[in-house]
Amino acid sequence: MNAEIISVGTELLLGTSTNTDARDVSLALAELGINVYWHTVVGDNPARLTECLYRARNRADLIVTTGGLGPTCDDLTKQTIARAFGRELYFDTEAADTIRAWFSDKNRPFTENNLSQAWLPEGCTVLPNDCGTAPGCIFEAEGITVIMLPGPPRELNAMLQGYVLPWLRERSGQTIRSHMVRMFGVGESQMEEKLRDLMDGANPTVAPYAKLGECLARVTAKADTEAQCEALTAPVVEEICRRMGDVVYGIDSPSLEHRVLELLAEKKMTFASAESCTGGLVSQRITAIPGASNWFRGGVNVYTEDAKTILLGIKPSFIQEHGVVSAAVAGKMARRVRKRLKADLAVGITGWAGPDGEDVGLVYVALAAKGECYVRRLQLGAHTDRERIRTVAAHNAFDMARRFLTGLDI
Amino acid sequence: MNAEIISVGTELLLGTSTNTDARDVSLALAELGINVYWHTVVGDNPARLTECLYRARNRADLIVTTGGLGPTCDDLTKQTIARAFGRELYFDTEAADTIRAWFSDKNRPFTENNLSQAWLPEGCTVLPNDCGTAPGCIFEAEGITVIMLPGPPRELNAMLQGYVLPWLRERSGQTIRSHMVRMFGVGESQMEEKLRDLMDGANPTVAPYAKLGECLARVTAKADTEAQCEALTAPVVEEICRRMGDVVYGIDSPSLEHRVLELLAEKKMTFASAESCTGGLVSQRITAIPGASNWFRGGVNVYTEDAKTILLGIKPSFIQEHGVVSAAVAGKMARRVRKRLKADLAVGITGWAGPDGEDVGLVYVALAAKGECYVRRLQLGAHTDRERIRTVAAHNAFDMARRFLTGLDI
Repeated sequence: MNAEIISVGTELLLGTSTNTDARDVSLALAELGINVYWHTVVGDNPARLTECLYRARNRADLIVTTGGLGPTCDDLTKQTIARAFGRELYFDTEAADTIRAWFSDKNRPFTENNLSQAWLPEGCTVLPNDCGTAPGCIFEAEGITVIMLPGPPRELNAMLQGYVLPWLRERSGQTIRSHMVRMFGVGESQMEEKLRDLMDGANPTVAPYAKLGECLARVTAKADTEAQCEALTAPVVEEICRRMGDVVYGIDSPSLEHRVLELLAEKKMTFASAESCTGGLVSQRITAIPGASNWFRGGVNVYTEDAKTILLGIKPSFIQEHGVVSAAVAGKMARRVRKRLKADLAVGITGWAGPDGEDVGLVYVALAAKGECYVRRLQLGAHTDRERIRTVAAHNAFDMARRFLTGLDI
Repeated sequence: MNAEIISVGTELLLGTSTNTDARDVSLALAELGINVYWHTVVGDNPARLTECLYRARNRADLIVTTGGLGPTCDDLTKQTIARAFGRELYFDTEAADTIRAWFSDKNRPFTENNLSQAWLPEGCTVLPNDCGTAPGCIFEAEGITVIMLPGPPRELNAMLQGYVLPWLRERSGQTIRSHMVRMFGVGESQMEEKLRDLMDGANPTVAPYAKLGECLARVTAKADTEAQCEALTAPVVEEICRRMGDVVYGIDSPSLEHRVLELLAEKKMTFASAESCTGGLVSQRITAIPGASNWFRGGVNVYTEDAKTILLGIKPSFIQEHGVVSAAVAGKMARRVRKRLKADLAVGITGWAGPDGEDVGLVYVALAAKGECYVRRLQLGAHTDRERIRTVAAHNAFDMARRFLTGLDI
C-alpha cells in the first residue's frame, strides 16, 4: 500500500508552524508497513489543493490529509477534497450534536460557525475528535482510501491512535509489529557498520536512525498474527543487543529518562539532581513523565556560585580552589543534593554552555550513590551550540544513572 | 517572486525526522516577502525527485532544495538536481581543500568519500558551510534560481542566514523589514477581531499567529530603504500596541523569558524559581538564554512535599492545612526561594499536571517581590495534556514577572 500525505495550511508555508502532522502520520503508517512516498504542503487555496489531489490520486492507494477542518478554516478545503473524489458534503446531525455537547460540557459559548464542522463527505466513516470539535473522516472512492484529519497535533494524534490505526489494521488483514532498540554512547556510523548485514533483511527489516547523540534500530516484521511477528523480530532484536552490547539502554523505551524512571521504580530507588549549566533540564525531562513524583525527589538549579553555596552548602573556597567547572564541584553537587534530599541516587552537572568563553563545551557530569561517586568529563567542542551542549550533558546524566542501576561500569 | 521548497530525505517520509528545514527556509523567505506556495518532501529516489523538479520548474521562480548533500548521501541527489536543469557536476578543488581543512582543524580522520561533497553544478555560486562539510550552492537556469542547502538544521540555518539571505537581498533591489508584536493573555480570535481592518493593508501587511497561549502579529513593509520600511511599519506597530494594550509583552522579543531577562537586566534585578508541577521548566527556559547567569540566581524543583520542606523549609503542617496545590503553598514557595537565594523576584508554581487525578489542570502560580506576593489561579482543563499544562504554567510565571517589572497590574 502506497500512501501520500497532504497537509493544508498557509501557516506551514509561512514557516510559523512546523509540519509535525506529516511526521506523526508517517511514523504511524510506517508501523503498519505502509510506504509513504510524498509529503506535500499546500495553502488554503482550492485550485492548488485540487491540483495536488488529482496528482495524488494517480499515484497513491491511500491519501491522508491534515488540517483545514476547523470552524475558522476556509470551508472550501473540505468541499475541495470531497469534490475531487466526486462527493458532496452532507450535514451530519450526529456530529452536530457532538459538537454542541462539547461546548456545553466545557461551559463555553457555542457559536453557529462551529456547525460548519458537521458537514462531511457523503458515505464517509466519521472519526470522533476526542480532543476538539472538528470530526475527521474516512471515505473510499475509485479504489483509493482518503482519510481527513484535523490540523492541531493533539487532535490529530488522538484520532490517529484511537480510530485511524485500528481501522487500517483491521483492513490490512496483516499484522505488523516493530521494536525499537535504543542506544546511547555509540556513533551512527559505528552502529551501521556493526548491523550492516542485518539491514539487508526483508522480514524483519532493520532500519537505523540517529539523533543528538542517541542511536536506534527499528526492527519490523509482517506476518498473519502478532505471535508470528514476535517470533520473527525476537532473534533479530537479540542479535542487535548482542552485537551492540551495553550501549543498548532499552527496547521500546521512549527515551533515556523513561528508562531511568523505569529502573528506579524496579529497584525502588529515588533520584535527585543538582544542575548548573543545564539549568533544570534533567529535572524538567524526568518530571515530564507521568508518575515521576514517586521516584524523583526534587532538584536544585544552582546556576550561580552563590546558589551552590546557599542550596548545597558548598564552600566558596572549595569552588575557588577547584574551579566552578571541575570534577570536584560536579561530584560535590551530586553528593550534597543526594544527601539533602535523601535520595538514593543523584546527579550533578557543571559546565560551560557558551556561547562565549574559553572552555565552551567542557562539562562534568557526576553521579553519586551511597558511598560512591562517578564523574564523566565531556568535551563537546567549542563550536557546539548551547542547546546541544545542554541536551547531551543531560543525556549523559541519565545514561550514568541507567548504567549504575543496571550494574554496568559507568 | 514565487518559491517552492523541496526537501530530500527518506527519514522525513518515515517520520523519524521532522521537516524543520522547510519551516526555517519558509520563515526566512517570508521575511524577504517571497511567497512560498508548495513544500514537497521526496525520498532519496532520483525518478521521483526529477518528477518533482520538473513540476516546480513550471510554477516557481525560486526552488530551494534541502538535504541530500552529505558524504553518506546517495550521490544521485545532487546529480539529479543539476541534470534537471541541464547542468553537469564539476569537481571544485577549492571546496575540496576546505573540506580537507575542516577535518584537519578538528583532528578527525579524513575519509575519501568526503570529497564527493566537492562535486557541484557547473557555473554555481558556492555557499560555504560554517558548521559542517557539505557546501551548498546557488545556480540560475532557464530564468529560475535554484538554491541547494544541506539537510542538518544547524548547517542549513547558518548557511541561510550567512549567505543565502544576503544574496537574495542584494538581488531583490528592495528592502523588506518585519516586526513581531508579541502578546500573552489574549485569545487568537479576540486578537484577530481587534486587528481585522489592519490585516487588509498591502504595505505594510499584518499577519496574525497563535501558539500555545501566545499570540503574535507580524508587520512587514517593503520599500527602497530600511528607513522607509521603518517609516511604514512604525505607525502600524504603534496602532497594534494601542489597540491590544498591555497584553503586548514585546516587539521582536523571541519569547516571554527573553523579555523577562531583558527587563531584569534593565532594572538590575535578580530572579529565582521554585517549581513543583513544572519540575524545572521555568529555570530551564530562562537558562537556555545566553547571559542568564547574570540575573537568574537559581531555583529549586520541589517535586515532592518532602522537598518543599527540606529545600524551602515549608512545614508539613502548612502543606497539610492548605493542600499541596493551593495559593498558600505557591505563595510560600515563591517567598521562601526568593529569600533563600537572595533574589529580588521569585516565582512559585504548584499544580496538577496529570494525566490522573481529580483536579488535573489546576495550577497556582505565585510571584514574590519585596513585601509583595501575587498568585494566579489557572484552570487549564482536565483534558489538557501534561505538556501543555506545564508550558502554559511556565508562560504565566514569566508573564507575571514581566508585568511586575513593567509596573502593570498582575
